[in-house]
Amino acid sequence: MSFASDNWAGASDKVMAVLAEANDGEVPAYGNDPWTGRALDLLSEQFERDVAAFTVSTGSAANGLALASFHKPGGVVIGHVDAHFIRDEAGTPLLYSPGMAVDTVDGPRGMVTADALAQRLADYPAGGVHHGRPTTVSISNVNEIGQCYRASDVAEIAAVARRHGCALHMDGARFVNALAFTKASPADLTWRAGVNVLSLGLTKTGGWCAEVVIFFDPAMREDASYRHKQTGQLLSKNRFAAAQIVALLEDNHALTLATHANSMAEQLGDVLRVSNHATLALPVQSNEVFAYLSPEAAAAMKRAQINAYAWASRSEHLPDAPAADWALHRFVASFRTTDTQVTAVETALRSMD
Amino acid sequence: MSFASDNWAGASDKVMAVLAEANDGEVPAYGNDPWTGRALDLLSEQFERDVAAFTVSTGSAANGLALASFHKPGGVVIGHVDAHFIRDEAGTPLLYSPGMAVDTVDGPRGMVTADALAQRLADYPAGGVHHGRPTTVSISNVNEIGQCYRASDVAEIAAVARRHGCALHMDGARFVNALAFTKASPADLTWRAGVNVLSLGLTKTGGWCAEVVIFFDPAMREDASYRHKQTGQLLSKNRFAAAQIVALLEDNHALTLATHANSMAEQLGDVLRVSNHATLALPVQSNEVFAYLSPEAAAAMKRAQINAYAWASRSEHLPDAPAADWALHRFVASFRTTDTQVTAVETALRSMD
Amino acid sequence: MSFASDNWAGASDKVMAVLAEANDGEVPAYGNDPWTGRALDLLSEQFERDVAAFTVSTGSAANGLALASFHKPGGVVIGHVDAHFIRDEAGTPLLYSPGMAVDTVDGPRGMVTADALAQRLADYPAGGVHHGRPTTVSISNVNEIGQCYRASDVAEIAAVARRHGCALHMDGARFVNALAFTKASPADLTWRAGVNVLSLGLTKTGGWCAEVVIFFDPAMREDASYRHKQTGQLLSKNRFAAAQIVALLEDNHALTLATHANSMAEQLGDVLRVSNHATLALPVQSNEVFAYLSPEAAAAMKRAQINAYAWASRSEHLPDAPAADWALHRFVASFRTTDTQVTAVETALRSMD
Amino acid sequence: MSFASDNWAGASDKVMAVLAEANDGEVPAYGNDPWTGRALDLLSEQFERDVAAFTVSTGSAANGLALASFHKPGGVVIGHVDAHFIRDEAGTPLLYSPGMAVDTVDGPRGMVTADALAQRLADYPAGGVHHGRPTTVSISNVNEIGQCYRASDVAEIAAVARRHGCALHMDGARFVNALAFTKASPADLTWRAGVNVLSLGLTKTGGWCAEVVIFFDPAMREDASYRHKQTGQLLSKNRFAAAQIVALLEDNHALTLATHANSMAEQLGDVLRVSNHATLALPVQSNEVFAYLSPEAAAAMKRAQINAYAWASRSEHLPDAPAADWALHRFVASFRTTDTQVTAVETALRSMD
Repeated sequence: MSFASDNWAGASDKVMAVLAEANDGEVPAYGNDPWTGRALDLLSEQFERDVAAFTVSTGSAANGLALASFHKPGGVVIGHVDAHFIRDEAGTPLLYSPGMAVDTVDGPRGMVTADALAQRLADYPAGGVHHGRPTTVSISNVNEIGQCYRASDVAEIAAVARRHGCALHMDGARFVNALAFTKASPADLTWRAGVNVLSLGLTKTGGWCAEVVIFFDPAMREDASYRHKQTGQLLSKNRFAAAQIVALLEDNHALTLATHANSMAEQLGDVLRVSNHATLALPVQSNEVFAYLSPEAAAAMKRAQINAYAWASRSEHLPDAPAADWALHRFVASFRTTDTQVTAVETALRSMD
Repeated sequence: MSFASDNWAGASDKVMAVLAEANDGEVPAYGNDPWTGRALDLLSEQFERDVAAFTVSTGSAANGLALASFHKPGGVVIGHVDAHFIRDEAGTPLLYSPGMAVDTVDGPRGMVTADALAQRLADYPAGGVHHGRPTTVSISNVNEIGQCYRASDVAEIAAVARRHGCALHMDGARFVNALAFTKASPADLTWRAGVNVLSLGLTKTGGWCAEVVIFFDPAMREDASYRHKQTGQLLSKNRFAAAQIVALLEDNHALTLATHANSMAEQLGDVLRVSNHATLALPVQSNEVFAYLSPEAAAAMKRAQINAYAWASRSEHLPDAPAADWALHRFVASFRTTDTQVTAVETALRSMD
Repeated sequence: MSFASDNWAGASDKVMAVLAEANDGEVPAYGNDPWTGRALDLLSEQFERDVAAFTVSTGSAANGLALASFHKPGGVVIGHVDAHFIRDEAGTPLLYSPGMAVDTVDGPRGMVTADALAQRLADYPAGGVHHGRPTTVSISNVNEIGQCYRASDVAEIAAVARRHGCALHMDGARFVNALAFTKASPADLTWRAGVNVLSLGLTKTGGWCAEVVIFFDPAMREDASYRHKQTGQLLSKNRFAAAQIVALLEDNHALTLATHANSMAEQLGDVLRVSNHATLALPVQSNEVFAYLSPEAAAAMKRAQINAYAWASRSEHLPDAPAADWALHRFVASFRTTDTQVTAVETALRSMD
Repeated sequence: MSFASDNWAGASDKVMAVLAEANDGEVPAYGNDPWTGRALDLLSEQFERDVAAFTVSTGSAANGLALASFHKPGGVVIGHVDAHFIRDEAGTPLLYSPGMAVDTVDGPRGMVTADALAQRLADYPAGGVHHGRPTTVSISNVNEIGQCYRASDVAEIAAVARRHGCALHMDGARFVNALAFTKASPADLTWRAGVNVLSLGLTKTGGWCAEVVIFFDPAMREDASYRHKQTGQLLSKNRFAAAQIVALLEDNHALTLATHANSMAEQLGDVLRVSNHATLALPVQSNEVFAYLSPEAAAAMKRAQINAYAWASRSEHLPDAPAADWALHRFVASFRTTDTQVTAVETALRSMD
């Protein structure tokens, strides 16, 4: 059952409690309620500036809205070859921004690097209407293979992007896990480093429908509000989405949950690191662990009902597998992951020794 | 506070209880969980056939997905001049179906009539690529001014639509209120009468995020599943949306809630009918009451904090106001509306006598 | 054969001669050739300002590009109920601007009036994300029933549009005919009166593929150049389109051709006016004549192989037909229309006396 | 001046003569004229079957229409990393098919190979809504670096595509040059080998606006006709586009022109092959020659006003340059290329010896 994904977990007890509380009374619909007001205030507070934020129902919608807001005719968005918005959203950003093209870069540990980005952007000389023009660079933090950009990494990328007239989007489906790992403040890891728009995912962290798009330039609020409605993302009883965000932001609840998940991943990493049947493919920097498993180890996981999934990547920078038949697997810890679950992995691996 | 809209109410106690129950344990994401399975089974059961159903987060998304699924190049959707999908969704269907045009008809009581529809469809002679071609007719049941189509009305419209090669969509944002009023079965009011796709709204009825698109031809499942994902509507922790639907469908909970709301509206209608300061503009057929209020009555409502909103309509078939300065107002009852709230309206009106 | 439409005519002799001339030698593709340069210079010259102009292959593409350039999320374009871009382009603007909604007004002689426009715009209160927001007003000059806006009419409409934050688009599929009728200068009839973008059609006037979109704010050039390419409208051997425009603009050739067509329409109007079997429905203000014909007259036209087509309009302001069975017909004169063709109509009508 | 591109040439004398002929008289607009009829007949004749064909104004529009016609929700089109529709059309297909994603393969000589294709298609397991689903494979014949697919190559690719439920599109911007090289019949190189839709470019061959989309399944005519209009591609005076096609298809005029261009390229290839300052990068299979030039040779070309352009490719299969500072250049011959122009290249190269 465990380690399949952090969206297999439910919502935290605190989130459920606040949802029950939010059910009280009649309040205006479509985000004109006190809960939404409170959520927006908390977001501005935690990001240390006035932001234009919108609750949405999925991460795909968040990415779609974020990218659409910087799209221009002939626009091209550049992301990592494994970027979620390119490989795993069935084209949501392409529907929200008709005509938008996508181009890719690659780098070690699934990262967009400033160098690779600069090289790719050089493919688009100014005025070349045939090729289109880059408008936005997108990075995922935590990225698709569990790695984190530090504030300084973000700043380097942002500088290249800006030099080419591009905005910088951060897909933060597991943003709080990145905060927990980097110890950076939300502001430092985003707008202070040059991020223009953030898809802030709190669903995996411990909500059940708690996704937010955050524009750091409040002047984008007006256009985005129409797009938010038009994409079918303006919830009528928005108080319930807002209440989850309130629950998760107050008293650093989300950070506490993410810190737990990261620490479970670290423990799991230690277990995998020492096994003869597994090799860590990448450092553990979040709540995700990527490891090569021997065929026997993969089978042992299945037998023990541990849902670590085989993982496909297009990156050409991943370390080679120890043997041809060892496959890359992803383990994801959540706020609900327990020591017992980690121990179950350990037991399964040891059973082969 | 009251009568503003049924989406100012929260969720029913039963819905909240089932949500808490659904929070238990780890289950697969993206609708591959037992709760989603149960919700789909219940939908097929209540509609008496295998259906292809998808949970979405808003009614706009439901309408957008429904209409997109029947769109063809040069396609035109025909609806009432006041149709919600035309006037109140900021163009969601136009974004989900790029290139889709919209045309309108009018009729008494805000209804699409078979005659008006046939006349409009005649504007599109076969093969006229310049004009585009009608692909879909859309009706709202309950409609935008609280009126219901009976199964026989639907069948007449469906016959005209079919004769012109059009599918029939029903926007059922308040579908259960229409069931409560017409006493028809879900199947009789939809596919047996010729409806191809239904936007089934259960949020206003008593959920908080409980919208479903239902295709009555299961062969549409495959295409719709990709569109569902691409529009950003595939919830990761879908069990929570599904649980609401389960709560609302089991033991006719939704019908019970809608029957209460309708009955409150009827009581309110009686109050307005006998007042010298108000005139019912239309019969009460759902949980919505449309009445002309004198300026004094409107002011009295405001003083009493009764949120009955002035209502704009483009229909040329509405009865005239009793006086030039009497304005059309909408009162909406919900599952939470109480006798006390109705009495408050009565008191406010009597205060002027 | 005659009077069906001005796009049944070929190209003028001068246009054909210049095309042959333009065929000489090798020149850069995609508009980087001397002919395109010359065409753009002539356009700026005739409009008395620097303009950003793009050749396109059809009037639908011109309208689509023009409207897309002012589109914003949730955007609504407002035009006359009979507007070509709404009724006769199979949704080109809706494809070029996904999510764009269309709304309509009506007025005497198929005109958008400042009053009707102001009233319609009031349907969209600021900040109403549900309704969308008007971004652009579109008028056709010559309009769909042969009538012309004078510069003062345009200015009144532009003032209302501007007050509501809307741009003003002019569909000038027969713009030169409007110039010929109003005696206004190109600048006076467009940007000096508040027009932001013009679809300038020279194909009907006497070219064969000679359509231009003209943005009066040169700052729109960059975005439009990408859109121009992306919509599939950047011709590789653009010198041939440009050469037509050069031929038509030099020495007022287009104006000469349009003046001839208008004058033929006027003669035809005189013939119809005095017949017992026809009634002019509208004044003759361009190269189009709209008249009610008795069934016998319509039959006589057919017998004489005069292609005057029955015309459908949704305007509620058209004068009533003299009798229930008299139908509205459109006659269009072109640069090639001859006295003989007018006489043929006269003869056909007299044959019934 | 020479060798820059085949769209720097004008139109052939025969094309110009037929255009003049087509200018005679009044004919119905929008393709309902005898010239269009004749062009469609000739296309069906030369492709040995009833086809649904549409004239368009650009190759980008042709590709856009072709790909849109096979698009499905979540659809992915697969092409070569250098494919024109991916790199050089500013996203036309992405605008015509909102939501369509693009994926790429690579192979020797810029070719899509059946093996690479099969491997890429395996990335899209059935039912994976997150990844989208491949709907169409697109190959260019002649491809982007002057290489030709033979009928047997096409058949192999078509077999893989079909096995995965994909249609096969051929971008034939230089299709007649591929016919000239492969000696295949139009039918053998397309539908008999499994091609579903062809973008047939005759502009570069010797027309000036002579592009056609050809669907080999006539049942696609109806939908395509609306899309054709909606994309702004239905020319009003279509007789002139059709006349060019007639001129080019009659008496194998296009094939004669393409054969000339290919033979000039071959001569040029011979010149480059023997030079010490140039190396052919690829075999000469069409009217395009790709060669590495030393910096001195590139400078000599410039001095001699020979417009051979430096060429960028993303393929990882191109042969290495003889030295780090030798750059890939493209030379394109057209129907107008003369021996003198080839000799000029020879002279320029010899000047360095």
